[in-house]
Amino acid sequence: MPTAKSSAKPAGNLLYAQSGGVTAVINATASAVIETARARGIKVLAARNGILGALHEELIDTSKESAAAIAALGHTPGGAFGSCRVKLKSLDADRARYERLLAVLKAHDVRWFLYNGGNDSADTALKVSRLAAEFGYPLTCIGVPKTVDNDLAVTDCCPGFGSAAKYTAVSVREAALDVAAMAETSTKVFVYEAMGRHAGWLAAAAGLAGDGADAAPHLILFPERPFNEADFFAKVKATVERVGYCVVVASEGIQTADGRFVADAGGGKDSFGHTQLGGVASHLAGRVKDALGYKVHWALPDYLQRSARHVASKTDVEQARAVGKAAVEYALKGMNSVMPVIVRTSDSPYRWKIEAAPLDKVANHEKKMPAGFLRKDGYGIAAAARRYLEPLIRGEAPPPYGRDGLPKYVTLKNVAVKPKLPPFEG
Amino acid sequence: MPTAKSSAKPAGNLLYAQSGGVTAVINATASAVIETARARGIKVLAARNGILGALHEELIDTSKESAAAIAALGHTPGGAFGSCRVKLKSLDADRARYERLLAVLKAHDVRWFLYNGGNDSADTALKVSRLAAEFGYPLTCIGVPKTVDNDLAVTDCCPGFGSAAKYTAVSVREAALDVAAMAETSTKVFVYEAMGRHAGWLAAAAGLAGDGADAAPHLILFPERPFNEADFFAKVKATVERVGYCVVVASEGIQTADGRFVADAGGGKDSFGHTQLGGVASHLAGRVKDALGYKVHWALPDYLQRSARHVASKTDVEQARAVGKAAVEYALKGMNSVMPVIVRTSDSPYRWKIEAAPLDKVANHEKKMPAGFLRKDGYGIAAAARRYLEPLIRGEAPPPYGRDGLPKYVTLKNVAVKPKLPPFEG
Repeated sequence: MPTAKSSAKPAGNLLYAQSGGVTAVINATASAVIETARARGIKVLAARNGILGALHEELIDTSKESAAAIAALGHTPGGAFGSCRVKLKSLDADRARYERLLAVLKAHDVRWFLYNGGNDSADTALKVSRLAAEFGYPLTCIGVPKTVDNDLAVTDCCPGFGSAAKYTAVSVREAALDVAAMAETSTKVFVYEAMGRHAGWLAAAAGLAGDGADAAPHLILFPERPFNEADFFAKVKATVERVGYCVVVASEGIQTADGRFVADAGGGKDSFGHTQLGGVASHLAGRVKDALGYKVHWALPDYLQRSARHVASKTDVEQARAVGKAAVEYALKGMNSVMPVIVRTSDSPYRWKIEAAPLDKVANHEKKMPAGFLRKDGYGIAAAARRYLEPLIRGEAPPPYGRDGLPKYVTLKNVAVKPKLPPFEG
Repeated sequence: MPTAKSSAKPAGNLLYAQSGGVTAVINATASAVIETARARGIKVLAARNGILGALHEELIDTSKESAAAIAALGHTPGGAFGSCRVKLKSLDADRARYERLLAVLKAHDVRWFLYNGGNDSADTALKVSRLAAEFGYPLTCIGVPKTVDNDLAVTDCCPGFGSAAKYTAVSVREAALDVAAMAETSTKVFVYEAMGRHAGWLAAAAGLAGDGADAAPHLILFPERPFNEADFFAKVKATVERVGYCVVVASEGIQTADGRFVADAGGGKDSFGHTQLGGVASHLAGRVKDALGYKVHWALPDYLQRSARHVASKTDVEQARAVGKAAVEYALKGMNSVMPVIVRTSDSPYRWKIEAAPLDKVANHEKKMPAGFLRKDGYGIAAAARRYLEPLIRGEAPPPYGRDGLPKYVTLKNVAVKPKLPPFEG
């Protein structure tokens, strides 16, 4: 019986898993991974709920999905196989789990492991790769970038960010038109809360909504810059008096100079002692109302901003597909412990390509915004930030809509692979 | 010198004003008003900031805008001339202001007054019309419907609602996919807050996002139905245990059986005594966390939901234009004190037409959702609601986008008309 060596089809299966917060385009990456592997005759297994599914041997056989379903996955937000917020510790501290992972991979003849996530996932992929080498198991591990936070090292940007950035800029531009129309007798200050616990990338993207001193958003609050309430109040007041209203965009992660999160300033309880999950925008709106007496409104789009596939950036969708395709190609070439990253070769015209970066350059690093991206007064974005951000939200890639007026998002069958190992308690 | 009588062009100007909360498509109505009037050779003046501009003689000459700008107005959200939240009282109580209004109309030879708003605006238009008759001034007053609240009497639906409804259904469908992907290790309960202080139309529209017992949204809270916290907790718990997560949509206006707004339950202060502008979603999320221990997230789209022109309903845009066009036609025919309303002639296929309704049938009435629109358990929508709502979000009408990835919204020049009267103190 000839072995895989004599055939064009490489031996073994590919395991794909999603990790961390999902995005509007992580499924576009999944779609490209599956389509690229299928074209090479490789079966793709997917882990249910990310690394948890790999640990618990809850695997999905994607070969049961039709080509049409996998194509539709390319325009469906969320995470089609489930994701998780689980970070494995060091090889020593979490040895039992890493060994179980390897046992599951072996049991299902997985020779290529693609982990689609942020810097934690890159770290996990790296460690799985090291353990496989230690055990002499032939495994190629690839990290695939994804995060709306845009905080991965090496890559110029992260798939998922461009679409969330476009959502942010479009939403702020639209809401600002509403506030402008009503300001004479109603809301004078509007606060929009953007995701970004440590880095202000999404808040910065709101800056694309307008340009010029009087264009909304008038004030952007970045986690990179200490929040000074008195200075902020003065800026809000000056803006309302000059423009007639003030649109504020606040990163959820802004902190005061002594390192306290502004979002926690309310103490987490209401006056009855109940948990009060306020957030930054609600807090700032209340403080502005108390201090300046203006009518305020605020918005907290929360998950809407990272799942808004309906207003995805075409650039982002293309990059999400490109990293998925490259990940499979790198894997099949045996390029172990790398991540396909986006390299920008030109701002204008915007040009980019995919290259392989060593996973250890990506793992556990966090990219903050360069200081030169902030406007001098710290409340807006500089020209360098515009040059960087603008291409990332460029182009529209709307999903198909049904007769019912809603986007046609796919739900996969997610057929389970029969487990081969005893259950894992860990 | 021949007078207007000898010409095809009727004598006088048309005044158009926007009132109350703006929408994604009120400018589409304005665009149709101006284009229809221009085609008949009529000059359209617009009041700056609604009725305030009419009182203070702050009028805008729309003839200074290019045809391209007026066309672009058709896909620009917000209120291009400004709106206001000012309700005139009875003719007796507010006599000075009504007389001033009439003086301004006379001074600028306004023979047709189109007031684009909700039931308050219909009432104002009616009273202006009565005063004009009393003074023997030839004026035709038309109310033009608009409100995301969908609570106007007579008309089958209100321009602005369909687009906000589409935004709601799309956003909830997308966010639900995100929650589903993360639920195993992260957020189990997600609460989306919809506008609707008195009627649950927008919350109901969220029900279009899914169908069937396990499809999101799992629970909708309507202002039409008393909120029972214990029952709600039980429903949330049962849903999480059955489905794995629970997506809740709450109308901002839900009340307990004793008539208290749930949004006010936090007392309005945080534990430091600062104003806490929580809202319903934040309150419910905190209560669910305290009572059931689940990880919760919530979203408050606020103005985003009524300004989201990027995801407007084509049906809604067409109806917004149709009422604008009909309003001018009715005005020029001298059909006084009427409103063009949308009459549904068939659910499937969806068919509608515009008819004139007397303003006094619309003014000061509020349309609530029929009881038959709620699911038997009160936490979702019934088939009748789907039949009513679905055609209203049908079709896409995206705005043009620029090379920069953002919708091309227009800012009008808004050239002021020179005042002819002394300033008004009132």
